[in-house]
Amino acid sequence: MKILFEKDQLIKSINISLKAIATRTTDELSNCIHIRAAENVYFTTNDSEMWIKTMVPAVIEETGAVAVNARLFSDIIKKLPAQSVHLTIEGTEARITSGQAKFKIPCLSLDGVDDVPEINRDYTMQINGFSLREMVRKTIFCAAQGESGNYTMLGEKIEIDKDVLRITALDGCRIGVYNVTLDKEYPANSCIVPAKTLQEISRIIRGETDELVEIVITDKHILFILEETVLLSRLISGSFFQFERLVSDDYELKVRVNKNEITESVDRSLLLSRESDTQPLVLRIGEEMRLSIRSKLGRMNESLTIEKEQDVDTVFGVNPRYVIEALKAIDDEEINMYFISNNAPMLIRDDAKTYVYILLPVSFVDEGE
Amino acid sequence: MKILFEKDQLIKSINISLKAIATRTTDELSNCIHIRAAENVYFTTNDSEMWIKTMVPAVIEETGAVAVNARLFSDIIKKLPAQSVHLTIEGTEARITSGQAKFKIPCLSLDGVDDVPEINRDYTMQINGFSLREMVRKTIFCAAQGESGNYTMLGEKIEIDKDVLRITALDGCRIGVYNVTLDKEYPANSCIVPAKTLQEISRIIRGETDELVEIVITDKHILFILEETVLLSRLISGSFFQFERLVSDDYELKVRVNKNEITESVDRSLLLSRESDTQPLVLRIGEEMRLSIRSKLGRMNESLTIEKEQDVDTVFGVNPRYVIEALKAIDDEEINMYFISNNAPMLIRDDAKTYVYILLPVSFVDEGE
Repeated sequence: MKILFEKDQLIKSINISLKAIATRTTDELSNCIHIRAAENVYFTTNDSEMWIKTMVPAVIEETGAVAVNARLFSDIIKKLPAQSVHLTIEGTEARITSGQAKFKIPCLSLDGVDDVPEINRDYTMQINGFSLREMVRKTIFCAAQGESGNYTMLGEKIEIDKDVLRITALDGCRIGVYNVTLDKEYPANSCIVPAKTLQEISRIIRGETDELVEIVITDKHILFILEETVLLSRLISGSFFQFERLVSDDYELKVRVNKNEITESVDRSLLLSRESDTQPLVLRIGEEMRLSIRSKLGRMNESLTIEKEQDVDTVFGVNPRYVIEALKAIDDEEINMYFISNNAPMLIRDDAKTYVYILLPVSFVDEGE
Repeated sequence: MKILFEKDQLIKSINISLKAIATRTTDELSNCIHIRAAENVYFTTNDSEMWIKTMVPAVIEETGAVAVNARLFSDIIKKLPAQSVHLTIEGTEARITSGQAKFKIPCLSLDGVDDVPEINRDYTMQINGFSLREMVRKTIFCAAQGESGNYTMLGEKIEIDKDVLRITALDGCRIGVYNVTLDKEYPANSCIVPAKTLQEISRIIRGETDELVEIVITDKHILFILEETVLLSRLISGSFFQFERLVSDDYELKVRVNKNEITESVDRSLLLSRESDTQPLVLRIGEEMRLSIRSKLGRMNESLTIEKEQDVDTVFGVNPRYVIEALKAIDDEEINMYFISNNAPMLIRDDAKTYVYILLPVSFVDEGE
């Protein structure tokens, strides 16, 4: 194998490939970029959850297929002195030359190593890059992190109904829902996609409105097809929490508040809140909204101007971190908060319900302010 | 106590104070900024090695003295909504208000707590901020890190001889020396200053040529006096390694090389070098300089154009990390390397010997390239 790359382009392709390199694995081939040069050059990587295959513009002087350690290859390429990068395989050694620099690193054979598996493409749909990135950004923080009793919470549910794609993430304490209007109608479908897969695809795409992403969904897999890259991920099987019953159109109080003001206040309240500290942020809705928090570290008190739709006062305890994460995902200047009752969740949503954040109440001992 | 601060100014003073807050201590007062408001407001902090006292511009409405947790106080002040910051002490509580934000945090009494100790000021000298920062930047990386058999290596030796200040750092494998010419002559003196102290003072000063820093040296302490801040540090006692015998004016080969080119080459060689991997970078001086390294990860080979003063060839093994750190501290475009013999150290220095880096050789099995 003998290939001539252009360094900047090569770095772009490596960065895409690295997203499917497991951080901890002892399997040598999983730590590698699989380089296959036939009619085109393709880099393939895979971790336990997904495969990424990307086409790399290059001049192929001799075809071949080998695997090289992804991190080492990446580190070397990024520090090369010239734009022309020659990769030559000599036996079990990959030789990288660029300008006066000459590296030799071990490489592995790809004999008998599978490329990305083929899946049936019966169900396909399209979404633009901007919408795809937005739907991930606005919900992914609500998904459960790390080990969870319920594996489905490590994923996000995607539901397609006619020309609407709804994505939902939840972790047992909060729910985030976002609706995207598609360019045309598709047959109904739904699946649970690992949050990590969604995170990586949203980093790989450009995120532009004129960027077309084709999505293939099967029973077990989801495939994202971009111009030069495909990402294949396994789906999560199981039943997703039926959150619809928590989303009610009944509420006793709707409050409108400036997003930046409440964001800064809640952000400050986090200074006194620590993981092990269970005191919630208390929102007291009267003439204005008073926010207060108390912990071993100290106490905080603030008040914000609000617009109230009903002449109702209420008190609600909530995890300030969940509030701030929802607020940071919202682009509106004003937000609506819906209070149902002390023991029911609080909702933050726009009038069109494009986004809905459902935050469960946290009980607290009301010592006043 | 009742003080009105201006937020941005307060943040500056806090940032200076934090430099003498220990990262790990269970002593509550050591985790605190000691606030004393009499004729002026002063913040004092101290860790096991040094004291910092800084004057904070403020309006004193009521005098007093308390200690507040430094990190918490810092975090709160940085997130306050308005420039006006009121600090009021009520019993054991410090009340911080700014705009609509109101915080209450615990505070401790300073009764019986000493301020910065007084020292005799018999020996004083002056240096400008730029020279002070440069002398630290150009040598500190040569000092030993963390636990070391010889405590003196955790410090840097400062020697004043007439109008020259020489600073030296070493860690057993390399030595860095830098000479500063002072504005006037001073009586001879020398001391060993903890590297951490030098690091912090070089971060606190502005680093400008028109900035005057007064330095007081006693048997046990060094005091840096700036416009609004003083830093008092203990000295390290013991005998500093007599490195002078390693610095010889005899050499068999002087080589001149472009600094950026050799920096980039050595930087690349680090990709193959790991802490546990003992293979040195091998410099082969012939017509040109060939750099090569081999490790379990792979091999690298490069060659650089050089100017040789003598018609001598040599081979020298060296730790590439030590080379790169010296190169990064040098501002010259061309550097001089002096080779004495395979078993003697290699020197990098300018003609005037303003800076001298002495790198010990690392033995290696010469397998060719």
